[in-house]
Amino acid sequence: MKKVKVAILGATGAVGREMMKILAERNFPVSELHLLASPRSVGQKVAWQGQELTVELACDEAFEGMDIVLGAAENDIAQRFAPAIVKAGAVFVDNSSAFRLDPNVPLVVPEINPQDALNHKGIIANPNCTTIISLVAVNALNTDSPIEAMVASSYQATSGAGAAGPVELMEQVAALGKGEKPEIKVFQHQIAFNVIPQIGGEAFEGYTSEEMKLQNEGRKIMHLPELKVSCTCVRVPVVRSHSVSIVVKTREKISVERAKELIAGAPGCRLVDDLKNKVYPMPLDTSDQDIVFVGRIREDLTCDRGLNIWCCGDQVRKGAATNAVQIAELLVK
Amino acid sequence: MKKVKVAILGATGAVGREMMKILAERNFPVSELHLLASPRSVGQKVAWQGQELTVELACDEAFEGMDIVLGAAENDIAQRFAPAIVKAGAVFVDNSSAFRLDPNVPLVVPEINPQDALNHKGIIANPNCTTIISLVAVNALNTDSPIEAMVASSYQATSGAGAAGPVELMEQVAALGKGEKPEIKVFQHQIAFNVIPQIGGEAFEGYTSEEMKLQNEGRKIMHLPELKVSCTCVRVPVVRSHSVSIVVKTREKISVERAKELIAGAPGCRLVDDLKNKVYPMPLDTSDQDIVFVGRIREDLTCDRGLNIWCCGDQVRKGAATNAVQIAELLVK
Repeated sequence: MKKVKVAILGATGAVGREMMKILAERNFPVSELHLLASPRSVGQKVAWQGQELTVELACDEAFEGMDIVLGAAENDIAQRFAPAIVKAGAVFVDNSSAFRLDPNVPLVVPEINPQDALNHKGIIANPNCTTIISLVAVNALNTDSPIEAMVASSYQATSGAGAAGPVELMEQVAALGKGEKPEIKVFQHQIAFNVIPQIGGEAFEGYTSEEMKLQNEGRKIMHLPELKVSCTCVRVPVVRSHSVSIVVKTREKISVERAKELIAGAPGCRLVDDLKNKVYPMPLDTSDQDIVFVGRIREDLTCDRGLNIWCCGDQVRKGAATNAVQIAELLVK
Repeated sequence: MKKVKVAILGATGAVGREMMKILAERNFPVSELHLLASPRSVGQKVAWQGQELTVELACDEAFEGMDIVLGAAENDIAQRFAPAIVKAGAVFVDNSSAFRLDPNVPLVVPEINPQDALNHKGIIANPNCTTIISLVAVNALNTDSPIEAMVASSYQATSGAGAAGPVELMEQVAALGKGEKPEIKVFQHQIAFNVIPQIGGEAFEGYTSEEMKLQNEGRKIMHLPELKVSCTCVRVPVVRSHSVSIVVKTREKISVERAKELIAGAPGCRLVDDLKNKVYPMPLDTSDQDIVFVGRIREDLTCDRGLNIWCCGDQVRKGAATNAVQIAELLVK
């Protein structure tokens, strides 16, 4: 396999650091790795695969000669540098939401729509973390009978807010333990021993930006332009994995037994479903790995073509960094 | 108002202790209060309203002369003593699930079906905590147009497992802080920094006992025998208030504006709904009070007669002790 030159844009954040780790773990064929970040991180030394890498300045010139740029930065940074990346002839696999709904940009979950990645025009978008985890869980149902609608409620870990999220949770827990007032910086309110029903700002008729992603990105990834999703996204005091409670309505009825069979055989999924023995997906069990755990599968009691499921996945890995590296793998195959 | 003799069965548990507090707070007309418990608590001294009460043994004879017995014990204890309570001529307002679906026992949320309480034959059941909180939130919609179905996902506090629940959460947090392995006694798995999608054992086709309560108790309380509910009950690392994400489907469409108006005017509810200003119900804000906070009201995007809502309420108070004392108030009116 041809080795490629890779840059990570936003290399010092939680997702950027995880991307480095996953490139190594998966033996991605890297000939050179460049870590790009804002001026305040430039010069930092980072160990990777027995080498000492130095963080470089993210600037238009930094992308020259690169084959693949993995984007782990916010929307404004992604938008700022996308033209230079494309001009340099690299493919930009971007984890921000800036280009996800752009009709010229494929939005890819490799287990679901790998073929879409090959139609890129220089940019491929990595979907939202909750969207990736939910869709990996339900995609096997969709291949059996098209999904018409989903009602989803999420239980999202603090890691979804970047490296500072889990730090804030732990600092608040420590402060409360000492009888001190917890400091609120990253989240809208205290997250320790609380749940916050807001992720993102208001985007559409009372729904937040995060809540609209499962419908809008789901339509594009699963090629279901009519898909309807009602989503409630909630931050919970968990460190790293997201969980989602989903009622999935398909065009034809899928039995619970058939659904279990489909999910057990689906790429990227593990069926973890034995309530009698207290076995079901939990965020503690899905952290630091790439598989989406799916369980609690049962018939929806409100609709005869619905299934009720519960899934968990590591938000930083499969929800972000691993999915991006898997997209890059499609490009070098 | 005539003063009545009251006994609390299971007085030393979390709900029993809260009942004492609420009887005092609400100036319930108590002439005598008896605290009944198992042998190991007998003789304990408890301060109440300037008196020192002594915990007495729960036995058949203990109910003689009582007017009202508030039940705060488990099902087996409630079943064991119910005949003696009824025989003694007292009314048993029972918080266990033992009698809730018994056709001879009214199941009452005073804001919803107070008239049912008056048809008792000696026993009145207090509903499940998540059911009370959810139904207080949606009842105003039901009075406008009958509710046909609900899809609910809960975020239930550790207090729902009794006094030992929050203790276990805090002990686990402390152990993890010291790098020790957290001990698991009350919950099925570690609850600190985790969520557990199981409350109760398997009851019906993959649903847990807790998950079936919202449908089965909801049908009886709201007088909706055809009500369909798909529920997923999840334990979260929160101390005391339960939260529920609900999609409510009504026979006729209710607009978001009308729903807000209805909920703002509903007894026991407070409309807390201003996403732009980060205002919505949260468990931290609803603990230690009796009102159910309702917010995040928006149209369900999967159905044109659905509304998506988010509600929170104190599980120990409105979800248990306060509701029981409110039922007792209906009896002494």
